Amino acid sequence: MTLPTLLRRIDEVRAACDDARRAGGTIGLVPTMGFFHEGHRSLMRAARAANELVVVSLFVNPTQFGPSEDLAAYPRDLDRDTQAAGDEGVDVLFAPSVDEMYPEPGVTTVHVSGLTDGLCGARRPGHFDGVTTVVAKLFSIVGPCRAYFGRKDAQQLAVITRMARDLDLPVEVVGCPLVREPDGVAMSSRNAYLTDEERAAATVLSRALASAADEISAGEREAAAILGGVRARIADEPLVELDYAELVDAATLAPIERIDADALLALAAFVGRARLLDNCSVTVSGDHVTIDQGVVAFAP
Amino acid sequence: MTLPTLLRRIDEVRAACDDARRAGGTIGLVPTMGFFHEGHRSLMRAARAANELVVVSLFVNPTQFGPSEDLAAYPRDLDRDTQAAGDEGVDVLFAPSVDEMYPEPGVTTVHVSGLTDGLCGARRPGHFDGVTTVVAKLFSIVGPCRAYFGRKDAQQLAVITRMARDLDLPVEVVGCPLVREPDGVAMSSRNAYLTDEERAAATVLSRALASAADEISAGEREAAAILGGVRARIADEPLVELDYAELVDAATLAPIERIDADALLALAAFVGRARLLDNCSVTVSGDHVTIDQGVVAFAP
Repeated sequence: MTLPTLLRRIDEVRAACDDARRAGGTIGLVPTMGFFHEGHRSLMRAARAANELVVVSLFVNPTQFGPSEDLAAYPRDLDRDTQAAGDEGVDVLFAPSVDEMYPEPGVTTVHVSGLTDGLCGARRPGHFDGVTTVVAKLFSIVGPCRAYFGRKDAQQLAVITRMARDLDLPVEVVGCPLVREPDGVAMSSRNAYLTDEERAAATVLSRALASAADEISAGEREAAAILGGVRARIADEPLVELDYAELVDAATLAPIERIDADALLALAAFVGRARLLDNCSVTVSGDHVTIDQGVVAFAP
Repeated sequence: MTLPTLLRRIDEVRAACDDARRAGGTIGLVPTMGFFHEGHRSLMRAARAANELVVVSLFVNPTQFGPSEDLAAYPRDLDRDTQAAGDEGVDVLFAPSVDEMYPEPGVTTVHVSGLTDGLCGARRPGHFDGVTTVVAKLFSIVGPCRAYFGRKDAQQLAVITRMARDLDLPVEVVGCPLVREPDGVAMSSRNAYLTDEERAAATVLSRALASAADEISAGEREAAAILGGVRARIADEPLVELDYAELVDAATLAPIERIDADALLALAAFVGRARLLDNCSVTVSGDHVTIDQGVVAFAP
């Protein structure tokens, strides 16, 4: 196993990427906030399989955190992350300081309207402006042919995909499956915040989605019925406080009353100090529906 | 003289630029709205002198026009522009349709705050969002090493320079001198709107700036005195209605009361159907000031 080249400076990353491009290679970028789990690693493997140079950025971006959120507490472990990136064959780990990314307070914002109105966008004002702006910066620095994002952050994936399309960015935004722990909990760096008891309680989120998926498979199409079930199941778990559970159109992310077209069933919930996301996507083809609840990763 | 290759489609321009990059060439981009005058041509020459591939974009961008502005009337003459670009050795003239640039209504906006608060930004709500967003798109499509803008649009140059810096865009934004007609009027495609009488009246703008420059050279530093003189001179010309005359800090574009550091003296005025801009920049070095009023172009 070779460790990735750890680069701290923008000009170093540009030079490495310029070299790769000049040699005719494609570049895959995996933007992350670090504290890698199997979800991140699946993105690295997807990038590794399709590109000559794989760059993973590791930056806990302050501009996407609200003032009362967990910026300071966000888990960090660069040594372990470097090992994990090496295991996945990553070439460059770009871990800039905040000063390197923001040498002065930025006055430029990339804003995606509409798609950011609901779900997490409604609960975390400014969050997606922070995300799109830093991702635009990372795209400018790395110049990737492809960039990889997990479907656990479904709204983020939709927003970044749309940003790339609207701004004609020369990058393919690749969405990768949500990855679950064996007990169903969606992998998240923020799971590190959970006590054992909270970790056990967090399974209610994926169980509630799985029950909803069963109901949809059995023919239920009404949002009120589907969401009522999800909310009731989560309300039964005293350690979990639902932030939202919504059924939205897959393309616009606007709330729907009935599943007539591709849809996203998405939720966010507070469990102890963590705010966790989960979702499943519903693909409609005539009378037939397919429900994607992601994949389960088992320890080797 | 070889005419430039006229390209209408984004993918064609990308392919031409990818070829040039692969061959190790640098790319210079001159973003324009067409109806070329000597100001545009000076940008093309600057680009030609420094790059292997010169791309001029010609796009009257609807998103930077307000609802009551002159989008429909904006002068267009593609045949003459193609000739002029050929005269200047331009390789590619990229003239997309509105549908090509906006196949669907864009929901992504690049916004630069602060620098857009005053001057034209205050009078043309949304204008600079339209400019920065379309320029970001053009940068994404062409991938220029250098992009050339005239100092007549001083606020635009400041805003785009800042956007590039904040978003780490891999492009050098090059500001080029304001170009004047022999009688001092700043070159502008919108001068085509003027009757002979209005065209004669428009000289008051550069004359007012030249008088202000004389006063500053003679030691005047107070904004109230300098702007009072400019406003009084322009008020004497019944065919010209001043929109604004302001003295602002060169870096922040915020109004100043005294010239203690580099400054911009900028104005906009309505002359007939045209809204015209003019400015001069003041560089301060100790007790010494240098005033840049641009260059005068004489017909060959």
